[in-house]
Amino acid sequence: MQLRIPGPTPLPDEVLEAMNRQMINHRGAEFRAIMQDVTERLQHCFQTEGDVLVFPGSGTGGLEAAIANIFSPGDTVISMPVGAFGERFAEIAERFYLDVWRVPSPWGQAANLEQLESALCSMPWTKAVLIAHNETSTGVQSDIEAAVRIAHKYGALVVVDAISSMGAVDIPVDRWGVDVAITASQKAWQAAPGLTMLSVSEAAWRAHAKAKLPRFYWDFTEAKRYLQRWETPYTPAVSLLYGLQTSLHLIMEEGLPNVFARHERIRDQVRAGARQIGFKPFAPDQIASRTVTALYAPEGQSARDIVTAMRERGVIVAGGQGKYEHTALRIGHMGFVSAEDVDVVLEELEAVVGVN
Amino acid sequence: MQLRIPGPTPLPDEVLEAMNRQMINHRGAEFRAIMQDVTERLQHCFQTEGDVLVFPGSGTGGLEAAIANIFSPGDTVISMPVGAFGERFAEIAERFYLDVWRVPSPWGQAANLEQLESALCSMPWTKAVLIAHNETSTGVQSDIEAAVRIAHKYGALVVVDAISSMGAVDIPVDRWGVDVAITASQKAWQAAPGLTMLSVSEAAWRAHAKAKLPRFYWDFTEAKRYLQRWETPYTPAVSLLYGLQTSLHLIMEEGLPNVFARHERIRDQVRAGARQIGFKPFAPDQIASRTVTALYAPEGQSARDIVTAMRERGVIVAGGQGKYEHTALRIGHMGFVSAEDVDVVLEELEAVVGVN
Repeated sequence: MQLRIPGPTPLPDEVLEAMNRQMINHRGAEFRAIMQDVTERLQHCFQTEGDVLVFPGSGTGGLEAAIANIFSPGDTVISMPVGAFGERFAEIAERFYLDVWRVPSPWGQAANLEQLESALCSMPWTKAVLIAHNETSTGVQSDIEAAVRIAHKYGALVVVDAISSMGAVDIPVDRWGVDVAITASQKAWQAAPGLTMLSVSEAAWRAHAKAKLPRFYWDFTEAKRYLQRWETPYTPAVSLLYGLQTSLHLIMEEGLPNVFARHERIRDQVRAGARQIGFKPFAPDQIASRTVTALYAPEGQSARDIVTAMRERGVIVAGGQGKYEHTALRIGHMGFVSAEDVDVVLEELEAVVGVN
Repeated sequence: MQLRIPGPTPLPDEVLEAMNRQMINHRGAEFRAIMQDVTERLQHCFQTEGDVLVFPGSGTGGLEAAIANIFSPGDTVISMPVGAFGERFAEIAERFYLDVWRVPSPWGQAANLEQLESALCSMPWTKAVLIAHNETSTGVQSDIEAAVRIAHKYGALVVVDAISSMGAVDIPVDRWGVDVAITASQKAWQAAPGLTMLSVSEAAWRAHAKAKLPRFYWDFTEAKRYLQRWETPYTPAVSLLYGLQTSLHLIMEEGLPNVFARHERIRDQVRAGARQIGFKPFAPDQIASRTVTALYAPEGQSARDIVTAMRERGVIVAGGQGKYEHTALRIGHMGFVSAEDVDVVLEELEAVVGVN
């Protein structure tokens, strides 16, 4: 079976095997060694010398953690939704009583940085910009480096949803100056779902010190305090950390630049192949995601029927989201994925639309 | 190796094996069948026909979820701490801006229900009582049935930390009228850590509808809405659910009454055996926990040294908490534990204190 949704992704055998280990004491030396190894390898992959914190929870939990740790009720943030998940991020901020100013882009387009600049210019009290690096619903990648440059000019932090791109795409957190970057284990990390990982910049720590939103579970200060001795404030998801540790070893053995290049090659392979058999990508080439491709079904064909037919042939792809439920489908190509895997997906896709 | 801390507990081979399965689509039929099976079996074990919700997170996350979903800032709650974890529950409530009135008991004693009644009498505006059924730091079990009876008389809800007892001890949620009961996968459920499970009564749902504390990740309404079609609002911890599902099958094959009786027998075995070799339990017999026993080390011996010596002999027990760090140790006996396991622990304990 080929599981090619935008996460969870298939797990390498080594990761599955790593999870097949007995429980250990989460206050003992064996656990502390794992926690240190995982943390240091995450810092390497995030390209940061700052803190990376790991919480038991999904990526959505990571987004909530960022909001609860950095802000106080009534703080103004600018959100840059370009699809369903950017909208979710804005909604979390609203639920936490932030004053959310949306600078949206139509589905299929990237974050509009000119409008970001004019919004910041007219609202200089803005605390932060919330932006997705890789919008999973449309397969669009936004320009985080430029967004940070603009936001920092106006004294705003940048909180980046990198859930479905970090680990697969070059996001040099320190060099770009990203304040908080959030990711999750079941995406490019080719690990099982249930862990979210966040980087925290010095400026984000300063904002955190003043942030009044309620938090206990997600509290960055507590997480960092326990991490001084490579522990966690409460029971960690031990099995998932076994798996993530092994994943991080696999990723670093392959080498980050090679992992990034593989994802770029595969993205191009998916788009070229899909176009050849009558599909049209949502995203223009220059902003195309390296980890997920959203495609319009060929004229006159139902995307839902295609997804169903693919499933019967053993290839699981995702449907379109929101209003694109009937017209689009999405292929995940992150983490544990090879050119041969993509060949299979494209062959089956061709067979299905040929006979559909 | 014998891992006998109060969670994580050892995993049965079947549970480890279940987790050794590939990822699946969390929006597909195979996942929905798992989610339905897990939910229905949890309802059976919680002895409720009401809702049981599962979140990716630790037990502490479950406590936070209960607070964030039931209350508004400034609400008055009475907390009944009898040890470190009851204190943590009160602290979470304070972090969420509740007005927390503590009715504490000394370590080693159960919740003081007479004082609960007088507190409720003098503060009839109290929204809820926060109480631990099983205090993991002291091995004490409080009388939840009576606490509910008293609290409901004054119109207060009862939110029960049953993290380390639900599944091992008879807690008939519906019959007693518990409003929210919280547990976690790595305790009596003999599954891997990273899932928290909560029951929600009708009265708790009514309170939830008016509760203004910010929440998105833990939101009960969203969780219930997705559960209508046996899905979750965001990516669930698939591997951990594989494991929990298998655990629940094992528990129900053994039969709940048998599981409860086994835990009671083992509790008695631990206490009798420990006393014979010079240890003194914290908790009097009539309030002794069925899942964890805290013991004072024999006169003149260091509990820390005993824990270290035990570890060298392959038996992992936990140290004392707080001010009992040097004088006490704790033995976990929940979930996947047999009389033979306890024999090993007691034999090694005897060997260690004999030669210490």
